[in-house]
Amino acid sequence: MYIKGVNLGNWLVLEKWMSPALFEGTTAEDEYYLPRQLSKEVYEARIKVHRSEYITERDFAIIKSYGMNAVRIPVPYFIFGDCEPFIGCIGELDKAMNWAEKYGLKVLIDLHTVPGSQNGFDNGGLSGVCKWAQQEESVEFTLNVLEKLSERYAHAESLWGIEIVNEPLTKAAWDTFNIMERYKAVDPEMAAGSAPVELDFLKDFYVKAYRRMRKYLSEEKVIVFHDGFDIYAWKDFMREEEFKNVVLDTHQYLMMAESDGCPQEKEAYVEYIQKHYETAVEEMQQYFPVICGEWCLFNSQACGCDTKGGQSVLNGIEGAQTEAYSEEEKKDIYQAVSEAQLRAWHKGSGYFYWNYKLLLDTVNENGWIGWDAWDFGKCVAHGWFQDEIEEQN
Amino acid sequence: MYIKGVNLGNWLVLEKWMSPALFEGTTAEDEYYLPRQLSKEVYEARIKVHRSEYITERDFAIIKSYGMNAVRIPVPYFIFGDCEPFIGCIGELDKAMNWAEKYGLKVLIDLHTVPGSQNGFDNGGLSGVCKWAQQEESVEFTLNVLEKLSERYAHAESLWGIEIVNEPLTKAAWDTFNIMERYKAVDPEMAAGSAPVELDFLKDFYVKAYRRMRKYLSEEKVIVFHDGFDIYAWKDFMREEEFKNVVLDTHQYLMMAESDGCPQEKEAYVEYIQKHYETAVEEMQQYFPVICGEWCLFNSQACGCDTKGGQSVLNGIEGAQTEAYSEEEKKDIYQAVSEAQLRAWHKGSGYFYWNYKLLLDTVNENGWIGWDAWDFGKCVAHGWFQDEIEEQN
Repeated sequence: MYIKGVNLGNWLVLEKWMSPALFEGTTAEDEYYLPRQLSKEVYEARIKVHRSEYITERDFAIIKSYGMNAVRIPVPYFIFGDCEPFIGCIGELDKAMNWAEKYGLKVLIDLHTVPGSQNGFDNGGLSGVCKWAQQEESVEFTLNVLEKLSERYAHAESLWGIEIVNEPLTKAAWDTFNIMERYKAVDPEMAAGSAPVELDFLKDFYVKAYRRMRKYLSEEKVIVFHDGFDIYAWKDFMREEEFKNVVLDTHQYLMMAESDGCPQEKEAYVEYIQKHYETAVEEMQQYFPVICGEWCLFNSQACGCDTKGGQSVLNGIEGAQTEAYSEEEKKDIYQAVSEAQLRAWHKGSGYFYWNYKLLLDTVNENGWIGWDAWDFGKCVAHGWFQDEIEEQN
Repeated sequence: MYIKGVNLGNWLVLEKWMSPALFEGTTAEDEYYLPRQLSKEVYEARIKVHRSEYITERDFAIIKSYGMNAVRIPVPYFIFGDCEPFIGCIGELDKAMNWAEKYGLKVLIDLHTVPGSQNGFDNGGLSGVCKWAQQEESVEFTLNVLEKLSERYAHAESLWGIEIVNEPLTKAAWDTFNIMERYKAVDPEMAAGSAPVELDFLKDFYVKAYRRMRKYLSEEKVIVFHDGFDIYAWKDFMREEEFKNVVLDTHQYLMMAESDGCPQEKEAYVEYIQKHYETAVEEMQQYFPVICGEWCLFNSQACGCDTKGGQSVLNGIEGAQTEAYSEEEKKDIYQAVSEAQLRAWHKGSGYFYWNYKLLLDTVNENGWIGWDAWDFGKCVAHGWFQDEIEEQN
């Protein structure tokens, strides 16, 4: 089965830029600080309404009608409701599994955050802190969550698989992301000692996780690991007979290509995609089925300004004040990068677009021109998403 | 311009069955009692997150991509924020007007509720009470809101027009809807004296409203009045030179046809639509441009049970426990009633589907099978909406 999917990001794991109203009246930049700046009642009211409205049954019907066959659902480590002050969301995931079954979609459950954070990103839940791998208790907690998820959904028809942990930040990308600068920690003491996740630790952790998950998951269900932004590091990994149906997940964004020096123009993006993404996916597909679990059409050229690696007004980058291109020109740029990326993923086993949906307002709020390319629904509505290659296959 | 539109119901005017989570933990059945059963903080948190998530820019892009050219936006009488404990929403409407402009959609602003209620429906904001027309102060308040809306948006490019008041319930339909039984008033004292809105009063009110709105609205903007469920009553209305660009709005639902004795089967629906809807629209189009401002594909046959005029589990009707028809059979029923209704509206000047979106869960909650036909997004996703006639024109 070739995976054509979308991420349901910002539903059970929040990102401020995707739904700013949830964070209104606070200075919180991430999910960790949100409940710490609101009363218990208000936090609960906001979160519950958000969860009940952001993704519902109708979205599964719509995603299916877009020709997709899967969704990747990011979930937080507090999903089981055992980490005050957070509110669990296993009930929402239960419902989603049933919606997926009704509409014939497969689900990849993706553990997107862990205590202490595996990457220090805002979407890791705790900006500027990356200490999970150093905290034995947090690591054990994570394994336990993975085990419980595996047990709960082992027999769910809609379960495609479970991803061990999203985007652990290894040395290979630590400097590129420059997280200690880009995501300033609120509490320097908590952040002190943050460091890249060691590859050796990560490999060992993945093996442990695999074993505890396979106890419950039959071999038809995939177990997915993220490459830690170091896709070539896994050639000697899990080569043993023991490991069945393991999928490698790599995330590739054009903003990372830009940080890597790719010129901000259509032809250069297409060339970069061929040279780097396509090559990497093709090569690693010899070792594991490879999916690109996160990607999108977003790029600085279509924004009409250098986003310096995907930074927005929330990071103090102004953004364009007017559209730099006509609708037709934008469509041309997006279709080109869409086609090139889909071609690259086709060397592997599939993809999940990031993200199915976001709540940006490019009309009434300054600085967001071009950012709606992150929104799959908008890409389809505008005809930016070029899926002809998909249809040939 | 032939109007092809959808209603953005349940965004700024709530209906419990469309987003039950907002009402969780209360016994409130309508918008009036919701803030009276929640703390100020929790009410505000729920409403603000709902408004920021239920409809956003992306929906305008999607509606446009569906081939629509207009939206009808129901607004409450407290839109300007001057009626405690309600929270105003003029800011949301401002944003929507800008989104519409960006995506080339026209907006019909629809005053959906008034103080004291014009119909006693839950969607009138105050179930089981119908006293607005008897309260001079409420009537004046309403005229004032209409005037302020007209002034504010007189020069908005996206404004198609303003509808004076939604569904005032006249004698013609008072018994059919049986509102005093169907929507029990919480406070019998408040409900005492509820009565149909008199046609003479309504005509006089519409003329007053027209004059106060036209002071601000140029003749290119339409002023819309609802027929009070008595479509033939308006032949001698506003015949004078003074009245320009006035549109008659009629609402036709198959559940009303069922209450009127139409058998619950496809062929009978189609026949009823031709005989009643098509004839009425055609005849009244000689007097005013006629739109069907609310309609949908919902019908008891596809639900697999008699809904007794569109009553749900919330009204104590159980609903079907399993699907009565296969996907193909349901599609066949819906396409037939879709085609017949579109043909009827085509004798007039256009339509608005009710509703663009709702948050029903037909999978995890009992009793809602068939109710997703109210959701235009789902109808499109399932291929139920048959718009071939539209495309011919």
